[in-house]
Amino acid sequence: VTIELINTGTELLLGRVLNTHQQWLCRELADSGYRVSRQIAVPDTLGEIEWAVQEALGRAELVITTGGLGPTSDDLTRDVIAKLLGRSLREDSAVLAHIQNIFERLNRPMPDRTRVQALVPEGALVLQNAHGTAPGLAMEVPQGPLPSRTGWLIMLPGPPRELRPMFTDSVLPFLRRVLPARTEFVCRTLRATGIGESVVEARISALLEPLVQAGLELGYCARPGQVDVRLASNSPTAHVLVAEAESIVRARLGPDVYGEGDEELEEALVRLLTHRGETLALAESCTGGCIANRLTNVPGASAVLLAGLVTYSNESKIAFLGVDPETLAKHGAVSQPVAREMAEGAQKRTGAKYALSVTGIAGPGGGTPAKPIGTVYIGLAGPFSTRVEHKVNAFDRETFKNVTAQQALDLLRRSFLSEPVA
Amino acid sequence: VTIELINTGTELLLGRVLNTHQQWLCRELADSGYRVSRQIAVPDTLGEIEWAVQEALGRAELVITTGGLGPTSDDLTRDVIAKLLGRSLREDSAVLAHIQNIFERLNRPMPDRTRVQALVPEGALVLQNAHGTAPGLAMEVPQGPLPSRTGWLIMLPGPPRELRPMFTDSVLPFLRRVLPARTEFVCRTLRATGIGESVVEARISALLEPLVQAGLELGYCARPGQVDVRLASNSPTAHVLVAEAESIVRARLGPDVYGEGDEELEEALVRLLTHRGETLALAESCTGGCIANRLTNVPGASAVLLAGLVTYSNESKIAFLGVDPETLAKHGAVSQPVAREMAEGAQKRTGAKYALSVTGIAGPGGGTPAKPIGTVYIGLAGPFSTRVEHKVNAFDRETFKNVTAQQALDLLRRSFLSEPVA
Repeated sequence: VTIELINTGTELLLGRVLNTHQQWLCRELADSGYRVSRQIAVPDTLGEIEWAVQEALGRAELVITTGGLGPTSDDLTRDVIAKLLGRSLREDSAVLAHIQNIFERLNRPMPDRTRVQALVPEGALVLQNAHGTAPGLAMEVPQGPLPSRTGWLIMLPGPPRELRPMFTDSVLPFLRRVLPARTEFVCRTLRATGIGESVVEARISALLEPLVQAGLELGYCARPGQVDVRLASNSPTAHVLVAEAESIVRARLGPDVYGEGDEELEEALVRLLTHRGETLALAESCTGGCIANRLTNVPGASAVLLAGLVTYSNESKIAFLGVDPETLAKHGAVSQPVAREMAEGAQKRTGAKYALSVTGIAGPGGGTPAKPIGTVYIGLAGPFSTRVEHKVNAFDRETFKNVTAQQALDLLRRSFLSEPVA
Repeated sequence: VTIELINTGTELLLGRVLNTHQQWLCRELADSGYRVSRQIAVPDTLGEIEWAVQEALGRAELVITTGGLGPTSDDLTRDVIAKLLGRSLREDSAVLAHIQNIFERLNRPMPDRTRVQALVPEGALVLQNAHGTAPGLAMEVPQGPLPSRTGWLIMLPGPPRELRPMFTDSVLPFLRRVLPARTEFVCRTLRATGIGESVVEARISALLEPLVQAGLELGYCARPGQVDVRLASNSPTAHVLVAEAESIVRARLGPDVYGEGDEELEEALVRLLTHRGETLALAESCTGGCIANRLTNVPGASAVLLAGLVTYSNESKIAFLGVDPETLAKHGAVSQPVAREMAEGAQKRTGAKYALSVTGIAGPGGGTPAKPIGTVYIGLAGPFSTRVEHKVNAFDRETFKNVTAQQALDLLRRSFLSEPVA
């Protein structure tokens, strides 16, 4: 099934809002075995909407539009599509009753203009809107140049809290009936850290090549400090292909794979610490709370994170972590010995089993020839020993913080590999 | 100037990531007087990319592509476009040297495959990538059916931290030269906090109506804890219209406006504290380092932020902030008296002039009928007194953290309005 998605909205083309519909709908469709081959965003102007819909109908068996069904003057989708397909609009009494009922429940007068939402193109099916006034609409339409072939055009309202339940409750069951997915779609994402995108590819691509020839789709998505490997297939043997590919990737990347699906490294770490019944403390200088913030985004973090100390100044390193003023004077705040004392101080003063420390130079100021911007020392105090790693993360300030946080979290994760639960 | 944007990436069509490029690029272009008329996302497959680029070149004077310039096998954009336009690829020695230099600085071996990023289509201009290996490319191309008309095709790398500075530093100045915007576009954004979108609209819209009739575009963009008011015009009197609108909005919103353009509240606060020569400490419980992380994203934060203490556990509130165990036992950790003692403890132990504290229930667990999820107490200890505010921020966990951080930062900002620099 060829599917195209058209998002209407001038605010999208002005960059005033993020197109969350695209991600949400594409994902829901993919997880149900449907793949969107193209997504298009156009402003709320007659010509652009008409042009985009007409082109999409020439290519795709299913076209989904979002937005433009509301009551205001820039809601044009319903009118444009009725005109394009030569269908007249009639007022649907059930839809009108639904709209009137909503205004009665809100105890507000119904503005006249609202009534336009009850207009339905001839031959269209109405998709109930349980959370708003404008219904969705589904129409069987000529598909491509041959008059005998038909496809479907589905119009969904713009507000996410109306679109999403309508899609799940009405559109998906409808699609399964009228356009059943011809093949199953299997998709698995493995997430790796501490390794670059091209190294990942060098390790796995040759071994995966036979599976790719057999119908495996292999995709890489890199962001600083992380590489996602996506294994997907909609061939008849999709399950087998993806499972074989996964075992190859896991074998070749080994401990570089920290998780799967959407799992962030901090989620993996909270999961591991919770499972091990162990606790953590943080002593952050240049990451400025980034590690604490990431960990506390995870529900349940409070059970494993005892405290995070953002000790930017030398005085606070001394006061809160017990760093020796002489160590600071002799080696400087950005140094291996200070990272060690920070981690050990946080561990001792909180009673946590593990403590991570970070001290470095985030930039844009503060670099020297001996310690350039990006220099960072990451300490891990464990029950038996403390280790400190030295990195140079020469990135912009926010990326530096995130990559360094990632490395610190990963240092702890990897230490678990050699230290099974006590 | 007709502009189309093509985002390549199978992960977009599978709904695995949000298309942040669309919003960012459309916004940057709009703010510089350029409007995108269509945006298209296609998967990383030869046919789809070729088809989309060819169609776009038939319609638009400027086509911008994102992604597909990296070193892996699904990076196809450069090859597809060179083939489509009949241009051969040659290795650019300056680009190769740049890539080699990056690997040397990182002290990592350069994988062979990386070299492909130094390939440049014949006649293309190279846009330097200051933050990564793959350069951007700009090509003058035949535009539409007439061979005499030419347009531009610009290829940008996918990673946002590479794309964004490249666009700002290279692409925008280049566009102003080769495709100057035909009308002047004046755009001003004022950012307000502590006030809802509909209240903002109620206060300003009627007064702005005559200016809107005269050619002012008025836009609102709300996210939790913040409302942006966008005043734009490309009429001949754009400057006057926008300036008049700005003075009306500033007069009507008063201290609710904290900044303009892209300035975040944390940037405004670091700017104010630096100007006043004053220092800050933080005592965060439920925001888990979010306030510290936001403040330390701002270059120069180290001069004003002495320390941030993420005291999740009761023990750490006692040990690091000197909160009285009896106060905790009597009122609970989420209470007005604990917020007060946290702020005063952080202020006293760091010697900072101001200290902010936060204690609350982020959810999804932990709520009670008396203290539902979202309950939060925000304390501000100043030189003369301490105040504590009570809020209920009933959002998901991450939104809760961000909105609460916003309120805490704003509490300090507003206190400056009545306390001029000593």
